[in-house]
Amino acid sequence: TGLVHVKNPHLDSLEEDVLYHLDLGTKTHNLPAMFGDIKFVCVGGSPNRMREFAQFMHKELGLAGDEEDLADICAGTDRYVMYRAGPVLSISHGMGIPSISIMLHELIKLLHHAKCRDVTIIRIGTSGGLGVEAGSVVITDTAVDTSFRPRFEQAVLDDVVVRSTELDKDLAEELLACSQETPDFPTLIGHTMCTSDFYEGQGRLDGALCSFSSEKKLEYLKRAYDAGVRNIEMESTAFAALCGLCGLRGE
Amino acid sequence: TGLVHVKNPHLDSLEEDVLYHLDLGTKTHNLPAMFGDIKFVCVGGSPNRMREFAQFMHKELGLAGDEEDLADICAGTDRYVMYRAGPVLSISHGMGIPSISIMLHELIKLLHHAKCRDVTIIRIGTSGGLGVEAGSVVITDTAVDTSFRPRFEQAVLDDVVVRSTELDKDLAEELLACSQETPDFPTLIGHTMCTSDFYEGQGRLDGALCSFSSEKKLEYLKRAYDAGVRNIEMESTAFAALCGLCGLRGE
Repeated sequence: TGLVHVKNPHLDSLEEDVLYHLDLGTKTHNLPAMFGDIKFVCVGGSPNRMREFAQFMHKELGLAGDEEDLADICAGTDRYVMYRAGPVLSISHGMGIPSISIMLHELIKLLHHAKCRDVTIIRIGTSGGLGVEAGSVVITDTAVDTSFRPRFEQAVLDDVVVRSTELDKDLAEELLACSQETPDFPTLIGHTMCTSDFYEGQGRLDGALCSFSSEKKLEYLKRAYDAGVRNIEMESTAFAALCGLCGLRGE
Repeated sequence: TGLVHVKNPHLDSLEEDVLYHLDLGTKTHNLPAMFGDIKFVCVGGSPNRMREFAQFMHKELGLAGDEEDLADICAGTDRYVMYRAGPVLSISHGMGIPSISIMLHELIKLLHHAKCRDVTIIRIGTSGGLGVEAGSVVITDTAVDTSFRPRFEQAVLDDVVVRSTELDKDLAEELLACSQETPDFPTLIGHTMCTSDFYEGQGRLDGALCSFSSEKKLEYLKRAYDAGVRNIEMESTAFAALCGLCGLRGE
C-alpha cells in the first residue's frame, strides 16, 4: 500500500498523539492536510543547512514565492527545524543516534497520521570520507557498526534487540545514476560506519582524551576500509534500522 | 592545582587546536583572555533554555549591561550555543550521549587552553522523574546505565572501555543545602538513569515502535526505582565519565 507502518499497538488507543519534539500533534494540527502529499524527506544534522537545502529545493522545483520566506514548521521548539518545499520535507536531527532516533520516531508517526504514501527518506548529512577523494558523495548501501557489522543494537527497556541496517539497494543505484548527470563531484556506493563518539570512536588524535597511537588509529581505519567502509558518521545504523522497520525507503 | 586535565599526549604537538563544533580555536581566539576566569559551566540540551539561563544568571549576579544583549559566543556554528554571565558559562549540548560528548571534549580542551582553575560543571537539563513529585529537582549522586550500573561503556576504536560514573558527592550535598533556601520546589538526591533512546529505551508506549506491554514497562520502572533511580535522561553517564576523568567537579 506504500503507507508508513508504525509498529505500536498502543498508538490506536491514544486520544491524542503529541509529537513533542516537533511541536506538532494530532489534535492541534491537521496532519493529513499539512503533510499528506509529502513524497521525500531529507534529513541532516545542522538546522541552518537543512533550511538552506529547503530553499535550494524550492528554487530547483520552481515553486511560487520567495525561498527566503520559508517558515520553520517546528518553530515552537528549538530541538529540530522542519521546512517544506513542495513534496519535500527538510528536517534537522542534531548529532548522534539518540538525537536522530527521537526525530525519526516522531517523523514516522507524523507520516503515518498524515497517511503519506510511497515516501523516500534520504539522510544528506556530513561524514568523514575514508580512502576517497575529499568532497566525494558516498551513497550508503549498508550502514555498519564500529565492528563493521550490518546491525544496530537497540536498547528496549533493559533488553538489547539487534536490528538490520540494510538500506534500499535500488534507491542507491538510482541515486548513483542521478550523479552521472552532475559530474562536479565524485560519487560512489559503499558502506557507512556509524559511531557513537566523534573523537575516541572515530580514531581522532585531537580530543580531550586519546589513549591510542597514530599507528593504531591507521590500522583500525585500514581494517574499516578493507571491510568496505567508505565514510564515517554518527546516525546511519539507527536511521537504517528505524526506516527499514517502518517501511520507509531510505538511503 | 585545580587545572583541567586533558589526557591526550598528541595535543601538545598540535600547532593549532580547532574546537570545530564550538567555532573557536587556539590561533583564532585568545582563550585565556576570553575564558581564564570561568568558574562555573552550566549545560543543558536546549539552546533557547541555555540563553535564558545565562540571562537569568546575568540578572542574579547584578552584572552591568542589558541581559538581552548577551551574545552567543558560538554564533559561527549552529551545533551548540554558548553564553557567558560573569564567571558562568552556559552551553547547550543537544540530545543524547554522542551530542554531549562532542561538546564536552571541546569544552574540556577550551578550559585547558584557557588555564581555568577550580571549575565546577553542572548539567541542568530536563529529565523524567521516577516516583517523585512533578517539578522536583533531582541532584544526581551517581549516573547509572539502563541496567542500573554506575558505568559508562565508551567505544575507543573497536574496543569498549568501561568508565566510572560517580559524581562529586560533596557538590551534591552543597546543592541540596542551597535548595533549602528556595523552598519553591522539592529537591532530593538520587541516582539518574541514562538511556540512549527516548521511546523504547525509557519505556514509553507512544513511539513509532513499541514491543512491550504497559505491565512490562511498569515492572522495569519499578526495578529502576528500587535500584535508587529517581530520574531518567540521556546524557548523564557520559557527562559523569568525561568530567571525572578530566578533573572537572561535576553534577
